[in-house]
Amino acid sequence: MFFTSDNASGAAPEIIAAVTRANEGYARSYGADDIMARVTAQIRSLFDAPEAAVYLVPTGTVANSLALALYAQPWTAIFAHPEAHIATDECGAPEFYTNGAKLMGVDGAHGKMTPENLSAALNRVGESGVHGVQRAILSITNITEAGTLYTPAEIAALTAIARAKGLPSHLDGARFANAIAASGATPAEMTWKAGIDILSFGGTKNGCMGVEAVVMFDPAKAWEFELRRKRGGHLFSKHRYLSAQMEAYLTDDLWLRLASQANAMGARLAKGVAALPDARLLHPAPANMMFPEWAPGTNARAFARGAMFYPMPGAAGRDTARLVTSWSTTEADVDALLTALRP
Amino acid sequence: MFFTSDNASGAAPEIIAAVTRANEGYARSYGADDIMARVTAQIRSLFDAPEAAVYLVPTGTVANSLALALYAQPWTAIFAHPEAHIATDECGAPEFYTNGAKLMGVDGAHGKMTPENLSAALNRVGESGVHGVQRAILSITNITEAGTLYTPAEIAALTAIARAKGLPSHLDGARFANAIAASGATPAEMTWKAGIDILSFGGTKNGCMGVEAVVMFDPAKAWEFELRRKRGGHLFSKHRYLSAQMEAYLTDDLWLRLASQANAMGARLAKGVAALPDARLLHPAPANMMFPEWAPGTNARAFARGAMFYPMPGAAGRDTARLVTSWSTTEADVDALLTALRP
Amino acid sequence: MFFTSDNASGAAPEIIAAVTRANEGYARSYGADDIMARVTAQIRSLFDAPEAAVYLVPTGTVANSLALALYAQPWTAIFAHPEAHIATDECGAPEFYTNGAKLMGVDGAHGKMTPENLSAALNRVGESGVHGVQRAILSITNITEAGTLYTPAEIAALTAIARAKGLPSHLDGARFANAIAASGATPAEMTWKAGIDILSFGGTKNGCMGVEAVVMFDPAKAWEFELRRKRGGHLFSKHRYLSAQMEAYLTDDLWLRLASQANAMGARLAKGVAALPDARLLHPAPANMMFPEWAPGTNARAFARGAMFYPMPGAAGRDTARLVTSWSTTEADVDALLTALRP
Amino acid sequence: MFFTSDNASGAAPEIIAAVTRANEGYARSYGADDIMARVTAQIRSLFDAPEAAVYLVPTGTVANSLALALYAQPWTAIFAHPEAHIATDECGAPEFYTNGAKLMGVDGAHGKMTPENLSAALNRVGESGVHGVQRAILSITNITEAGTLYTPAEIAALTAIARAKGLPSHLDGARFANAIAASGATPAEMTWKAGIDILSFGGTKNGCMGVEAVVMFDPAKAWEFELRRKRGGHLFSKHRYLSAQMEAYLTDDLWLRLASQANAMGARLAKGVAALPDARLLHPAPANMMFPEWAPGTNARAFARGAMFYPMPGAAGRDTARLVTSWSTTEADVDALLTALRP
Repeated sequence: MFFTSDNASGAAPEIIAAVTRANEGYARSYGADDIMARVTAQIRSLFDAPEAAVYLVPTGTVANSLALALYAQPWTAIFAHPEAHIATDECGAPEFYTNGAKLMGVDGAHGKMTPENLSAALNRVGESGVHGVQRAILSITNITEAGTLYTPAEIAALTAIARAKGLPSHLDGARFANAIAASGATPAEMTWKAGIDILSFGGTKNGCMGVEAVVMFDPAKAWEFELRRKRGGHLFSKHRYLSAQMEAYLTDDLWLRLASQANAMGARLAKGVAALPDARLLHPAPANMMFPEWAPGTNARAFARGAMFYPMPGAAGRDTARLVTSWSTTEADVDALLTALRP
Repeated sequence: MFFTSDNASGAAPEIIAAVTRANEGYARSYGADDIMARVTAQIRSLFDAPEAAVYLVPTGTVANSLALALYAQPWTAIFAHPEAHIATDECGAPEFYTNGAKLMGVDGAHGKMTPENLSAALNRVGESGVHGVQRAILSITNITEAGTLYTPAEIAALTAIARAKGLPSHLDGARFANAIAASGATPAEMTWKAGIDILSFGGTKNGCMGVEAVVMFDPAKAWEFELRRKRGGHLFSKHRYLSAQMEAYLTDDLWLRLASQANAMGARLAKGVAALPDARLLHPAPANMMFPEWAPGTNARAFARGAMFYPMPGAAGRDTARLVTSWSTTEADVDALLTALRP
Repeated sequence: MFFTSDNASGAAPEIIAAVTRANEGYARSYGADDIMARVTAQIRSLFDAPEAAVYLVPTGTVANSLALALYAQPWTAIFAHPEAHIATDECGAPEFYTNGAKLMGVDGAHGKMTPENLSAALNRVGESGVHGVQRAILSITNITEAGTLYTPAEIAALTAIARAKGLPSHLDGARFANAIAASGATPAEMTWKAGIDILSFGGTKNGCMGVEAVVMFDPAKAWEFELRRKRGGHLFSKHRYLSAQMEAYLTDDLWLRLASQANAMGARLAKGVAALPDARLLHPAPANMMFPEWAPGTNARAFARGAMFYPMPGAAGRDTARLVTSWSTTEADVDALLTALRP
Repeated sequence: MFFTSDNASGAAPEIIAAVTRANEGYARSYGADDIMARVTAQIRSLFDAPEAAVYLVPTGTVANSLALALYAQPWTAIFAHPEAHIATDECGAPEFYTNGAKLMGVDGAHGKMTPENLSAALNRVGESGVHGVQRAILSITNITEAGTLYTPAEIAALTAIARAKGLPSHLDGARFANAIAASGATPAEMTWKAGIDILSFGGTKNGCMGVEAVVMFDPAKAWEFELRRKRGGHLFSKHRYLSAQMEAYLTDDLWLRLASQANAMGARLAKGVAALPDARLLHPAPANMMFPEWAPGTNARAFARGAMFYPMPGAAGRDTARLVTSWSTTEADVDALLTALRP
């Protein structure tokens, strides 16, 4: 009953098989391996973006940080939801990679920035001349940290506001596959067609061992990315193992099948939680992560019965939790958790 | 005939098998996996260092940079050979992770700093009060970038000079296994018994997929290391795959067996090169890397015959090359290269 | 009618005279001048702090940034009011000097953090292990950016909360003299006796040309300060001119007399504003800065009559402004402004 | 007998008078003062550079660091003489302001880079793809740290080599006035006509209190300069005092008259030193700084007689020294020193 995070799951069998296959013989190092050339072609095709530059890194933290550093000078501000992973869970990695840019919170219910709040934040920043930091880039997370979904239209509305101030937009897609599975949108519709300039396309949480693609729809900063990646210690000498994971992930829609399974188990769990006495979900849960609030004692009871998930800070006199399903969650897992949660 | 680098090789079968095994089921993330606890115990035992703090990262660049950043404040100097990997091949990663410390070259023949040059450099730096940078740490590479070996006594002589000025010492052990295999020293003799405070213990070049251990013989800065690693984007969520590689690497002396094979092939190759007409080795070659100088046209002839290695800048009218063997190099590989090199 | 800022004023005659006197002959450079030794003694005496380390820098921005950088590692958070100068008006200088620490907003009415909000912020940050930034230091501004005053007891209440979490406290005293004049507290009562560890003691806004003292009540980090100051390009070779300004500022209570004049003019202005029809002050104005809100058209009318001050964003259908008096403001200046503001 | 440094001198009377005059009344802050507009016009005229952007900062360290940071990304190398002030005497300020660029030494006798060494260094760096740092900018110092002079033709030869690799060039002119006085060249000939893109034009050492102009012959990066200056804490609120110094410095060729006096005293001293028994100058001394080597005991004898200058490391069994004259050095000062040096 592992519902702590999608990163507590292992890798899908296809991923391990691909890594094993890639292990044969010698290969060019530092990203010049043959597999990487195929990965680039796969991603360009998947996103209908024949000019995109594509790079692989091992963690979502560095994927986001490098993407932001390309656009955010040290004296600028990055606009993101105050609960965004880049703001709260990366120990200041964006500040490190940007050499000191600021994260500016743009609030909104259910983990989603509102256009009104974004406009207000953009107007507040960058209007005091040399004394204040300058505006740099918008960063949107989809699936959000609250487990919710931005539709392509919602993303487009935000990026248009940013664009009107001259700002590019980044999408933190640590759970991009879950967002695609939940929305039915195409990868292109969710990204560049909605105004996204650079994407962190996650693999790790969705059945890879550890690989994320950074997709630059405008390749102008590709060389700078390569230098920054190397300087960050993230250029793998035996790069083939990153390439092999991503190639398998993209082959035969594995990425989408894994996310669909995670989301289906999320839906089953959400339905079951909603049916529990005295329980509700704090946010809509269209994908694989949900935040229930339930009667006091519920968390402790489930833990005692072997369930694993994170309790969350919440309202006085209530228990709150975060539940995450993954590609490897089964119906039996979900049902066992629901049983453990019941009085 | 792949002699470009030990990172062109794949991973040893034991490593792949371990990764596959580690894939089963759920595991705690971010380094709290059970395998990591065993790895720490293995390394403490191997180094006879029961208090050591042990961390895993995916690349040698970040292992070195994080290790140095613990000791080198931004306004300080790191003392290393001018040809050290940290000085020439990491795109300024040490400067990035230290927020701007300086690399100070300490020269010496065959890629090895001399005690005299180290003393002179230490005296030159840090004696101009607030106007100059301050002395921070000594960094030694073994096997060196020239393919040569420091004995434990040679390391101890250098670290003693550093210690007399209050400086700790770092060992870049990207090829630490090859150094141990070449010297017959124990890991403890080559490190803390010789005055080393912090070690980058390489796995990637010697048969792993991508994993390096940072071994802190004084664990006082362990928490700072964790924060810096996270902030650099190098804390793996699915950390078990790093752990599994390192556990297998340390089990049944796999690390030493792989390095011994690489070194044996290096010896065979060195002997063969020395027997070529009009050829010589520019540096002693006790391990798995050598730098031959030979008659003009030799490089081109070998390339035409399918050999792969790096040509190097060298004396006018001569060809120079770098040849590297690895755990997967066979006698047949060596002999084929020698045939390709012969007129 | 210059009410834009206290930095639009010149320097007091005593300051210019001291600089002129200091110009005679040769002097040791880089802070080793004889005047600086006297300044250190003056400040230690004034603050009843015989061990304090004292340094001079030319701007408040760098005084704050260097002070914070001594305590805030790159992976930490600095707690300050969201409207604090360090958060909004220094173009990210604290982030630059700390190599990327975060400013965490602690809100409260009238520009003053409340103990409740500080406790909540401290509890929110630094409780997510390695994933979040760590807690570093509290920074309080007195006189605040809203023109209001913290009493020593209010400061002590905040620093005690910080201290309970292990955090030191910084006081941004760009208008420290105005705070002392407004409160009647002694410098010691307002600083170390109230739990302040490091102070930016402003001279520039209060009648100097450009000098701020950083006062470290615990001198343990004095040498690090010197290195950081030099590295920031803020160690003056002809340091005597900084020293001379500060010596004169501290002689015969000039600093307090200048601030008292500024505050007296502030009080006269505040009283006059309160008597204007349809006007009110948005915050208490115990010192030399106030934020009136008044009938629409008031700003334009005053500007047309030659008044100079900053309009501020405010409520719809109202005019808002910032008015600042200084040591050189006269009763005639105040009365002229009030005339210009009247219908 | 103060010959330690030109920064041990005070300011010229014209400078103090100008500061006193500038003190009258109110002035716009942060560089918007009327005097600054005049300074910009003066410098554009003096350099025959009507488009140049001009900024003032208080120290040479920050002038150099900001100038370099505009052109040197963190992952790049700055090429300069190994004895350049930026390399040895600024506590890593260029590394701080560039967020970690490397200083690459380009050697040459008498403190002057040779074209051959510059070509070799440029070829060595930036040819290893993503693994090594990239080439950024050339930095030349005139008058050099050895007291020697580059002619405009020598500067042009170096900048042409840099330009051929796509690199701009910076001139550290802490003693620019002395170089102009010594060479007879015009400011334009010594800078943009010789391929210099950005200049640190020193005032402090040559009779100002503390002011340096950064002159950008290509103003494209002017706004970035403003942001970086503010972020470094170097934007003065009461900027008029920097402006006033520079205006007076540039009026009626004061800068050139002061430097000519310093150089004349340097020539008198050099002639006198050359006439001492068993003494010689280690480098040519065309300006106001010289490095004599003389019989052992000479330094101690002169110190005992009240002379003040810096002893230098030198050959065994010899005394070495650095002697610097300034605008305020008199013939009597020189003669007194020579007397003190004689047996």
